[in-house]
Amino acid sequence: MTQAFLAALRSIVGEANVLTTEPDCAAYEEDWRGRYKGRALCVVRPGCTDEVAAVVRACAAAGVPMVPQGGNTGLVGGGVPHAGGDEVLISLARLNRVRAVDVVNNTLTVEAGCTLAAVQAAAAEQGRLFPLSLASEGSCQIAGNLASNAGGVQVLRYGNTRELTLGLEVVLPDGRIWNGLRGLRKDNTGYDLKHLFIGSEGTLGIITAAVLKLFPSQSRRAVAWLALPDAGAAIHLLASLRQRAGERLTAFEIVCSAAHELVLQKMPGSVRPLAEPAPWYALVELADSDLAAELEILLETALSEAFEAGWVIDAVLAGKESQAQALWALRENISEAQKKDGISIKHDVSVPVSAIPAFLQQADAALEAAFPGVRIVAFGHAGDGNLHYNPSMPQGGEANVAFVARTTEVNRIVHDIVAALGGSISAEHGLGQLKRDEILRYKSEVEMDMMRTIKAAFDPRGLMNPGKLL
Amino acid sequence: MTQAFLAALRSIVGEANVLTTEPDCAAYEEDWRGRYKGRALCVVRPGCTDEVAAVVRACAAAGVPMVPQGGNTGLVGGGVPHAGGDEVLISLARLNRVRAVDVVNNTLTVEAGCTLAAVQAAAAEQGRLFPLSLASEGSCQIAGNLASNAGGVQVLRYGNTRELTLGLEVVLPDGRIWNGLRGLRKDNTGYDLKHLFIGSEGTLGIITAAVLKLFPSQSRRAVAWLALPDAGAAIHLLASLRQRAGERLTAFEIVCSAAHELVLQKMPGSVRPLAEPAPWYALVELADSDLAAELEILLETALSEAFEAGWVIDAVLAGKESQAQALWALRENISEAQKKDGISIKHDVSVPVSAIPAFLQQADAALEAAFPGVRIVAFGHAGDGNLHYNPSMPQGGEANVAFVARTTEVNRIVHDIVAALGGSISAEHGLGQLKRDEILRYKSEVEMDMMRTIKAAFDPRGLMNPGKLL
Repeated sequence: MTQAFLAALRSIVGEANVLTTEPDCAAYEEDWRGRYKGRALCVVRPGCTDEVAAVVRACAAAGVPMVPQGGNTGLVGGGVPHAGGDEVLISLARLNRVRAVDVVNNTLTVEAGCTLAAVQAAAAEQGRLFPLSLASEGSCQIAGNLASNAGGVQVLRYGNTRELTLGLEVVLPDGRIWNGLRGLRKDNTGYDLKHLFIGSEGTLGIITAAVLKLFPSQSRRAVAWLALPDAGAAIHLLASLRQRAGERLTAFEIVCSAAHELVLQKMPGSVRPLAEPAPWYALVELADSDLAAELEILLETALSEAFEAGWVIDAVLAGKESQAQALWALRENISEAQKKDGISIKHDVSVPVSAIPAFLQQADAALEAAFPGVRIVAFGHAGDGNLHYNPSMPQGGEANVAFVARTTEVNRIVHDIVAALGGSISAEHGLGQLKRDEILRYKSEVEMDMMRTIKAAFDPRGLMNPGKLL
Repeated sequence: MTQAFLAALRSIVGEANVLTTEPDCAAYEEDWRGRYKGRALCVVRPGCTDEVAAVVRACAAAGVPMVPQGGNTGLVGGGVPHAGGDEVLISLARLNRVRAVDVVNNTLTVEAGCTLAAVQAAAAEQGRLFPLSLASEGSCQIAGNLASNAGGVQVLRYGNTRELTLGLEVVLPDGRIWNGLRGLRKDNTGYDLKHLFIGSEGTLGIITAAVLKLFPSQSRRAVAWLALPDAGAAIHLLASLRQRAGERLTAFEIVCSAAHELVLQKMPGSVRPLAEPAPWYALVELADSDLAAELEILLETALSEAFEAGWVIDAVLAGKESQAQALWALRENISEAQKKDGISIKHDVSVPVSAIPAFLQQADAALEAAFPGVRIVAFGHAGDGNLHYNPSMPQGGEANVAFVARTTEVNRIVHDIVAALGGSISAEHGLGQLKRDEILRYKSEVEMDMMRTIKAAFDPRGLMNPGKLL
């Protein structure tokens, strides 16, 4: 029976695109951080939407569950099969064409398997910006970004992947194709189906193509690294910068002292940008499409106010592009520096922007009380209320192993505080396998019930990425 | 049985808030344009979310269908009961509190029955902008804006109501309350339920409150009225302005010659802003939160390029605020001027921005061929690809009555062209009763089936605003 099923798949996508041996499948069966390892019945690599639909129909006919996979760069195990060996892993990597560019409409129609970097490049070729930007952009694929509603460093200005999407093409769990590839800014003709699939982590269907929004390219940018007295000052500074700079405020990242020191220590070539250490830092970027924009003047004016108000202790403005890149590296290298330092317990949380200081104060205090000596590396997209909050034991070794073994307790402390402040326990990474059970503690029964209702309505047999998200 | 049911409703909301007599109910039973008139079993006016929930539970228990209503300013009959007299009309007008303001988080939590003007005022009180703006803002209510995903004149910059919303509170068809009032920019913990209710025209539940996004207030604006050689020039001009001005480009409206002449003719006090008539006009607005912004210089630089390229024939820039308002009135008074001129067949369509010239050329030609002498008043939000396209017979009288009697044929011509260009037959007004059947011609069976699946899953007994949208 399995042989007949595999033969059916081969007849759809060709011999070479049905992988069954352990060595061929291994890279698809494990996530890149090595935290989730499963076993698939096979890996299928369709080459076009019709092939995806035919594969899905074959799986549905045989009652075989499916796991869609993009660049396999996810952080929550959402694209990795379970261990049972009974799931077909459907890789979208071969659907990698840019189908259409409409510069006047500011849209790009791309297939699921285009890497984010390829989408950015296609936009840049037309003198436009596709603003989604994140660490794995060279290998993550756009349908994975869509399925997980990816965030990144420019969300403050441009929104999450959800806000960057105008239309979708989706293969439904029964193999029908929904062509929702509309490039419209306004369309009020019924329920907004695209938003149901965006962020659904492959549990309702397989996204095969999308119409994405393009934006004016950024002609100029101004970048500053600022020393702050505390996290509360960051929030005042953000509000002031936003009122003054409007949408030009493209990024507002904060970095705690411990995170900054780790980068300076662990990442060769890192240079301390300011003379004195400070409790907190902010990385601010303004960008403008207008070549004549005087962003430095705008930024300096805003900062002189902030100095007077006591929100900023010290500041350096990048004088040229290489300096801007060096300042950004101080932010972008935090994860890598912490990895070099050893394992930590990672949280990807969000709260209302106004609640960031309260969250940090409460979570720091609660963790220190429960785990004396704990070191907290906190940083992230403060403009979006999104913090990466990673505690560990600074001395490493046995103490840290023992600490990490108590992840469940640590999560409980951090996530309960997040929830009490009206926040989210997964701001940009999704639920996948990692937080599928944890979310049950925080979402109301009504909300879980609505989610299950949708899942049952679209995928009554539960064949689409089972055990993820729900 | 009806008496017992009415008594149950009165025990929930009080005697005074269950209206049953014809005079009391009349204003709720007819839309403001007088195109849809129904009869309700009664009008219920709950005063809080718990009362809405109790009313819905009572209706569900009795198997009585419900019609939620806001300010009753809709254009498609979505909030008006059918003629049968068997539906309970639930007015949300008494839920009109601003529940919370969080200036630092840039959010406002408001109840369903707040007028849009009240929401704008609450934002302005905090020195912030709530950018949704449309003709009926003094009387339309925010939950109606949400249920219909309202658009308006600043969508180009800020998006539709959908994009302005972070969280919702909804009473479900069985009377349960979903509290999704989150004020988060990032939350990837499952299906995005709020987007399902936004634009669902009251067919999936009753929106009782929302968390809305606030923006920096606009400190400066520059407004210009431009004469253009043709609609194609408008599209080039738009692309050029957008690249240069970025998000500062807040509005880009186009107005055809016939629309402009009607306003000058019918609206007292209207003054021709440019010496010579032109085939098309554009109203452009730039706005900036930065007090030091030199928008006039930016606009003049952009326009001098546009003159050279031949996209603009003549231009006037508003020198002061009163002039800006006068220019805006030339755009805003078109509907009123056309109403004074007599009845017309109205279309609210969108196409990709790049397809605007093709749409106008094809639709104008097809209508002229079918109805020689037809006059087309075309105008709208070109920056969003959204046109109001209203043909009539210019001589009025019998000829026009005969023309309007052929609305179905006219719609067929216009909507078929819209669909062929990848557009939408309802850009910002919704489906309601007006386009519920018309949409069947244009949406795929797959898409209609998904919409019906959702409706059946959330409202299996079909009690929530039946016969609207679907």
